[in-house]
Amino acid sequence: MRPNRRNHSRPLNGLQKERTGIPGFDEITLGGLPAGRPTLVCGSAGAGKTLFAMEFLVRGATLYNQPGVFISFEESNEELTTNVASLGFDLNQLIVDKKLVLDYVFIERSEIEETGEYDLEGLFLRLGHAIDSIGAKRIVLDTLEALFSALPNEAIIRAELRRLFRWLKEKGVTALITCERGEGKLTRYGLEEYVADCVILLDNRVENQISTRRMRIVKYRGTSHGTNEYPFLIDEKGFSVVPITSLGLSHPAPTEYISSGIARLDTMLDGKGFYRGSSILVSGTAGTGKSTIGAHFVESACARGERALFFAF
Amino acid sequence: MRPNRRNHSRPLNGLQKERTGIPGFDEITLGGLPAGRPTLVCGSAGAGKTLFAMEFLVRGATLYNQPGVFISFEESNEELTTNVASLGFDLNQLIVDKKLVLDYVFIERSEIEETGEYDLEGLFLRLGHAIDSIGAKRIVLDTLEALFSALPNEAIIRAELRRLFRWLKEKGVTALITCERGEGKLTRYGLEEYVADCVILLDNRVENQISTRRMRIVKYRGTSHGTNEYPFLIDEKGFSVVPITSLGLSHPAPTEYISSGIARLDTMLDGKGFYRGSSILVSGTAGTGKSTIGAHFVESACARGERALFFAF
Amino acid sequence: MRPNRRNHSRPLNGLQKERTGIPGFDEITLGGLPAGRPTLVCGSAGAGKTLFAMEFLVRGATLYNQPGVFISFEESNEELTTNVASLGFDLNQLIVDKKLVLDYVFIERSEIEETGEYDLEGLFLRLGHAIDSIGAKRIVLDTLEALFSALPNEAIIRAELRRLFRWLKEKGVTALITCERGEGKLTRYGLEEYVADCVILLDNRVENQISTRRMRIVKYRGTSHGTNEYPFLIDEKGFSVVPITSLGLSHPAPTEYISSGIARLDTMLDGKGFYRGSSILVSGTAGTGKSTIGAHFVESACARGERALFFAF
Amino acid sequence: MRPNRRNHSRPLNGLQKERTGIPGFDEITLGGLPAGRPTLVCGSAGAGKTLFAMEFLVRGATLYNQPGVFISFEESNEELTTNVASLGFDLNQLIVDKKLVLDYVFIERSEIEETGEYDLEGLFLRLGHAIDSIGAKRIVLDTLEALFSALPNEAIIRAELRRLFRWLKEKGVTALITCERGEGKLTRYGLEEYVADCVILLDNRVENQISTRRMRIVKYRGTSHGTNEYPFLIDEKGFSVVPITSLGLSHPAPTEYISSGIARLDTMLDGKGFYRGSSILVSGTAGTGKSTIGAHFVESACARGERALFFAF
Amino acid sequence: MRPNRRNHSRPLNGLQKERTGIPGFDEITLGGLPAGRPTLVCGSAGAGKTLFAMEFLVRGATLYNQPGVFISFEESNEELTTNVASLGFDLNQLIVDKKLVLDYVFIERSEIEETGEYDLEGLFLRLGHAIDSIGAKRIVLDTLEALFSALPNEAIIRAELRRLFRWLKEKGVTALITCERGEGKLTRYGLEEYVADCVILLDNRVENQISTRRMRIVKYRGTSHGTNEYPFLIDEKGFSVVPITSLGLSHPAPTEYISSGIARLDTMLDGKGFYRGSSILVSGTAGTGKSTIGAHFVESACARGERALFFAF
Amino acid sequence: MRPNRRNHSRPLNGLQKERTGIPGFDEITLGGLPAGRPTLVCGSAGAGKTLFAMEFLVRGATLYNQPGVFISFEESNEELTTNVASLGFDLNQLIVDKKLVLDYVFIERSEIEETGEYDLEGLFLRLGHAIDSIGAKRIVLDTLEALFSALPNEAIIRAELRRLFRWLKEKGVTALITCERGEGKLTRYGLEEYVADCVILLDNRVENQISTRRMRIVKYRGTSHGTNEYPFLIDEKGFSVVPITSLGLSHPAPTEYISSGIARLDTMLDGKGFYRGSSILVSGTAGTGKSTIGAHFVESACARGERALFFAF
Repeated sequence: MRPNRRNHSRPLNGLQKERTGIPGFDEITLGGLPAGRPTLVCGSAGAGKTLFAMEFLVRGATLYNQPGVFISFEESNEELTTNVASLGFDLNQLIVDKKLVLDYVFIERSEIEETGEYDLEGLFLRLGHAIDSIGAKRIVLDTLEALFSALPNEAIIRAELRRLFRWLKEKGVTALITCERGEGKLTRYGLEEYVADCVILLDNRVENQISTRRMRIVKYRGTSHGTNEYPFLIDEKGFSVVPITSLGLSHPAPTEYISSGIARLDTMLDGKGFYRGSSILVSGTAGTGKSTIGAHFVESACARGERALFFAF
Repeated sequence: MRPNRRNHSRPLNGLQKERTGIPGFDEITLGGLPAGRPTLVCGSAGAGKTLFAMEFLVRGATLYNQPGVFISFEESNEELTTNVASLGFDLNQLIVDKKLVLDYVFIERSEIEETGEYDLEGLFLRLGHAIDSIGAKRIVLDTLEALFSALPNEAIIRAELRRLFRWLKEKGVTALITCERGEGKLTRYGLEEYVADCVILLDNRVENQISTRRMRIVKYRGTSHGTNEYPFLIDEKGFSVVPITSLGLSHPAPTEYISSGIARLDTMLDGKGFYRGSSILVSGTAGTGKSTIGAHFVESACARGERALFFAF
Repeated sequence: MRPNRRNHSRPLNGLQKERTGIPGFDEITLGGLPAGRPTLVCGSAGAGKTLFAMEFLVRGATLYNQPGVFISFEESNEELTTNVASLGFDLNQLIVDKKLVLDYVFIERSEIEETGEYDLEGLFLRLGHAIDSIGAKRIVLDTLEALFSALPNEAIIRAELRRLFRWLKEKGVTALITCERGEGKLTRYGLEEYVADCVILLDNRVENQISTRRMRIVKYRGTSHGTNEYPFLIDEKGFSVVPITSLGLSHPAPTEYISSGIARLDTMLDGKGFYRGSSILVSGTAGTGKSTIGAHFVESACARGERALFFAF
Repeated sequence: MRPNRRNHSRPLNGLQKERTGIPGFDEITLGGLPAGRPTLVCGSAGAGKTLFAMEFLVRGATLYNQPGVFISFEESNEELTTNVASLGFDLNQLIVDKKLVLDYVFIERSEIEETGEYDLEGLFLRLGHAIDSIGAKRIVLDTLEALFSALPNEAIIRAELRRLFRWLKEKGVTALITCERGEGKLTRYGLEEYVADCVILLDNRVENQISTRRMRIVKYRGTSHGTNEYPFLIDEKGFSVVPITSLGLSHPAPTEYISSGIARLDTMLDGKGFYRGSSILVSGTAGTGKSTIGAHFVESACARGERALFFAF
Repeated sequence: MRPNRRNHSRPLNGLQKERTGIPGFDEITLGGLPAGRPTLVCGSAGAGKTLFAMEFLVRGATLYNQPGVFISFEESNEELTTNVASLGFDLNQLIVDKKLVLDYVFIERSEIEETGEYDLEGLFLRLGHAIDSIGAKRIVLDTLEALFSALPNEAIIRAELRRLFRWLKEKGVTALITCERGEGKLTRYGLEEYVADCVILLDNRVENQISTRRMRIVKYRGTSHGTNEYPFLIDEKGFSVVPITSLGLSHPAPTEYISSGIARLDTMLDGKGFYRGSSILVSGTAGTGKSTIGAHFVESACARGERALFFAF
Repeated sequence: MRPNRRNHSRPLNGLQKERTGIPGFDEITLGGLPAGRPTLVCGSAGAGKTLFAMEFLVRGATLYNQPGVFISFEESNEELTTNVASLGFDLNQLIVDKKLVLDYVFIERSEIEETGEYDLEGLFLRLGHAIDSIGAKRIVLDTLEALFSALPNEAIIRAELRRLFRWLKEKGVTALITCERGEGKLTRYGLEEYVADCVILLDNRVENQISTRRMRIVKYRGTSHGTNEYPFLIDEKGFSVVPITSLGLSHPAPTEYISSGIARLDTMLDGKGFYRGSSILVSGTAGTGKSTIGAHFVESACARGERALFFAF
């Protein structure tokens, strides 16, 4: 007996969440990303990190009226705008509407060579200015490695990562930071995921020559969440994650009939034929007329002016 | 014949243990964590190390009247409080009641760069003060790497680890120290587990896109313990470990009957129908009426005002 | 409901693409390589990187009237010309026609030892001159490692890679840069693929002593693309990729008949024999005459003056 | 024909062995550990190295009148005493009886930093004193890494290992030295096992969530030995190894009968029923009464006042 | 439609090839090694690299009248001569006939220590002299690592490799350079295969305790070639590679008969018995006389004075 | 047709071999080790390297009248003598007879630290003296790593290995040098096997908890040899290798009969019973009397005074 445990299943009350507006994702995370905290999105090249981050900003601006800032270290503003046009996002309009700021930070080789690293303080100034200019509530940094790859060792990386996260939390913005996968590790240095409050892994595995996109919430401090790997799609409407639990048992039972194309068979089927929408298995040994039944069915569909597909092997 | 061996199975008398109050865990460890000694909890990001450690403190304070100290190097007091609210823990009340101290130690980059490492002596002072302030019996350090990642080599890490453990033992507190997994190793440096008296591994493997949480007692000096991998859950009531041995053979034989929904079938079944709670397999070739029997059964349940689930494939 | 999403599937409008003229490849990429941007082609030795890059230039010059520049760090102009002759490419004629410039850059050991690296600025000058001399629209650099292997660390490589890509984009040329695979990584340093806009992997795996060439579009910013692994061939006509989707269901139903070689069997088959182009399965236990039927069929074909293949096991 | 070979299988005469008193182990090693030589015991954390070493000393002191010395670099005397109490060992009594010396050597960080390594000569002095104080014949060093982790390279480690082993041999003591496993290697440096005369591997693999303890004699110069992996147990009586060869074919044939619980079945079985101790397989299709026969059997056992287990699936 | 593609399959015209005279190899490579270019032969110890290289020279000298030079860094002239005698090669006669030069270059430790590497210029002088002395057309360097293992980093190795290959090409000789395999890589440094025009891998895998020699053409610039793994043999006549394609369907149909040894069976078989050269399957349940039929067959063969093998299991 | 190939299979004439006297090994190597050349024996700890090397010397001294020298860097003369006594080798007598010299070379840490390596010249002097003192024809160095582990890099190791091998060849002795396995490599540095003329691998794999000793001739310059893995044994008579080819088809057909123990069955078997030495399969469904027939057979054997084994499952 454990007297101090509460026996009623009350709603979670600690952590505030920010909806991303990405279908499926908010279901898996039971509400979205942790509000006012930074989240890591890691994945290999081509996994969709930048698109995920950008959709987070665009949905925030358009659905939830939260302005956003995108700090890019690799793609120029023009390139970014072009690249996300395929998802139907019109960044220029959002910028005009003061809903979005794109800031492309180009780090010169000389900056790395002279100081041994890019200066975080300078970034904070620039970032703060961008946030304040539109009252941003969401921010993306793409990508962590551009900032941190010149740091000399793991202890320093850990300390600077903590400093960056601290600064973002104090600013009160919900942040998304992309980072690259290491060899056999979630992240390049294998420590970023320990410091972060929330870690999302985007994966694009090739198995038997077929590639499949999958997402996993590796870690999410302060909340329950779906822990499995979920398939996701990127199409012309953006991201969509397919949580298993959202596959509802909601198909209505069929009530309409459709002729089998064979009168006597229809007669045997209560005089009505097949239920529309049902799957019919025709079984029999070679030569007993399976293909012929199928052909009758298809032909009758065509005769009614309907379209039909006939697959023969 | 071995004359010096004691032939009677007497109770273990050497090591004192401290109950954690976590369901299942105290069964696996035959009593809890080693009292007055440090224990390592290792696991990858998102494995639940911090939650396990915090539940150890909260249960100690509420169930066993043992005040506790939580030293955090990554999460601020506010964040910690928020993050464990989802488990139903009210840290603020415990702090007010002098049952808990949260201490957030933020290590600056400059500290690492100047001294090459964070100073353990300073930590001991701060830690000693926190312990004494509420007469703490339990302590958590979250996480080892924050302290040790700047140490220059394995020999130094080993020596400092020994020093830290020695200090904790002299203080007489039961300590829990979280540490991160290395690549293909239990711990980051692969030596922490040799120095520790007790090592617990939290795991969150993904197999076939499904994630499962498992716990293992890797090592526990001075006692027998369960050595297998045990599944565990984290839900709104906290941790619960499922030791195999706790699955008792305690189901009572069913004595009540329930109608099959088909009068003649009930007659064949001694006039009573199925045993309530039993599993009925209906077997037959296609078209012999299996689905129909199931439908009758479900319908009769509904007719009695009971709820029924009907799965059709 | 997501009000901001466009419900109609409109054509992609952001990114311009440049057709390669390589059969199958333009289908997979929905139009070719990203126009005015650099693309990485990575693969192990013998994967076909150089041939792919050269075909990109030759097809551009001959099919799309786009002059091209090939910068080689490993093969001299004569060697290159010889090596691609097997694909039927006549580079000398293209050079005479001002459609192609070959430039062989030989990096001396002393250049590496003195400066620690090959000077990118010098390359830009030389490259710019080659581009301007024929108004090139396409450019190939073969291979990245020849330029970058002397760079001291990952942060510098990342910065220089960004500089090279930036320069190429400003020049407005569609660039193809070959790079070598690392151990268990796509690229030698494991970061090139993150910086690039488009990454193509050529693979030549040996499984069960059989080698198969496969291609994969690892990443393509700003567009949808086929993401699976596609087999490809290199033969005397160059590359050809076999996208699964291009296998059309376009076979006409057979209407001609061909004698089985056995009069009574033809009679049973409506007096006509087999459909020409169909596959006939002759089944029966040992000794029932399967081989004999096959032999009759083959013999009758020969008697008609047709050629036949008879495989016996 | 090989004339110089001795054709008779005479007993081994070269190497003297020291019985450990651990059940099963002395059978596998054909007599115990090499007398007057050092043996390595390697294994990962929690494998049971310290317990094995301590049982070697305790059995030596109590069964064979050989005093022993335990040099610990990690556990204090009090901790060691507590930790092995669970095996039923009373170290304090052995110390009072001058049968055992525990010596806890704590290596400070400063010792490592100043000299680059712990001084072996100092250890020899301290060790020699402990041995002479009780005329010890057995000695344990727990653990090698505590001594050697600060050595700068493999050549030095090899030389120092040779020096340590040489010193122990000259002292004439039978030594057991524990050492940690490396990644994918038997030992941390991968060379300790080459220098040692005898190497024992303790393993604690987890397969399918079940952990099993296994022991292997990797190497034993100068003698034949069992070479397979042998399961072993650690329980409240200490270690016990299960050599396959000790599973004798010594079951007596059953001669007593036990009723099947069904009179007519007993009649069919010569009027006597089953042999006591035999396994009865009852086979039949569903519904033919298999469970009923089992239930009769169990019921008749209970009726006779015997206890019975009935497993139903 | 691709207008610029040539529709006729014309012979390759670019690259000249040099026949090796090794059976099977010239078929796989469609003509031999690239004339006037260097080729890498890589493989692990015992793979047959030196033998392959030597047979290339010996066949060149004896079959194609091309004198050759063998530069050895590991085996003296006497040793080489002895080692290839098992293949039936008489090197001394070839040397007397001015068809072969053996040059053993012994690199002293001091040369490596003083200059950090062996001087390539000195090698070129020595090599040029050997080539000119007999007008050599073929050359072997055995082995690359002897020259390059002292080079300080990958960029230098790459540059020097390019310089060596350039020098060889300018000399116009067809060169074969052996090199060692790295761990999980084709070559020791993992870059040699990128610089080379042609790369041959010799393999000697052990699977299920059986070793099999296999060869693969990893890369061959400027030509098509067999890309699979081909088994090969080394016997007293040298190398022979077994290309799958050389297994012709050229067996003539058998026309001769041979008695089954059983008169009545012969009668059933048209009075003639079996076709000589055919495989007869005798099938039946145990005890139906299968072995007896086989024994009759064998006995009758022996009675005719023929030799027979009878395998019984 | 290849005119220059010799069509007759003449005996190998190049390389001289020295018989080891180890049963099976001389068959696999077609005559033993390469005379006057060094051979590497590599294997992990406990593989039997030292025993193999010592048997090579002992057999040489006793069977072939070739005195031998054993240079040990790890085991003292007394230890070696003790360790091989289990194989029935009396080293002391061989030493008295001037057939063997044991020389234990102990390398001090100071020698490594001062000179960075053990001096090879000093070893040559000492080795030369030992060889000359008894006119040794065979020599063993146990083990390479003791000499070479202090060398600073691969280029130096390669050069020194070449120097050592050169010196041994000039001395004209047949040498055996033991060396340790590396991680995933045949040897510690992965280059020793390339420099050596002959490489033997001893293996002691554990599969499914069962260990098996296997030997493989990885490389043998100048001769054909068995290339598979061969199981071998170490017992009280020394090594014996089991080449597959030595399992001759030489069993005589059985001619003697043995009663089945059942008179009527013997009658059915021509009145004689089973052939002695044959395997009898008794097949039947459960309860048809299989065990009973076996029991009769065994009982009749016992009745004849013969011993019988009856395995029942």
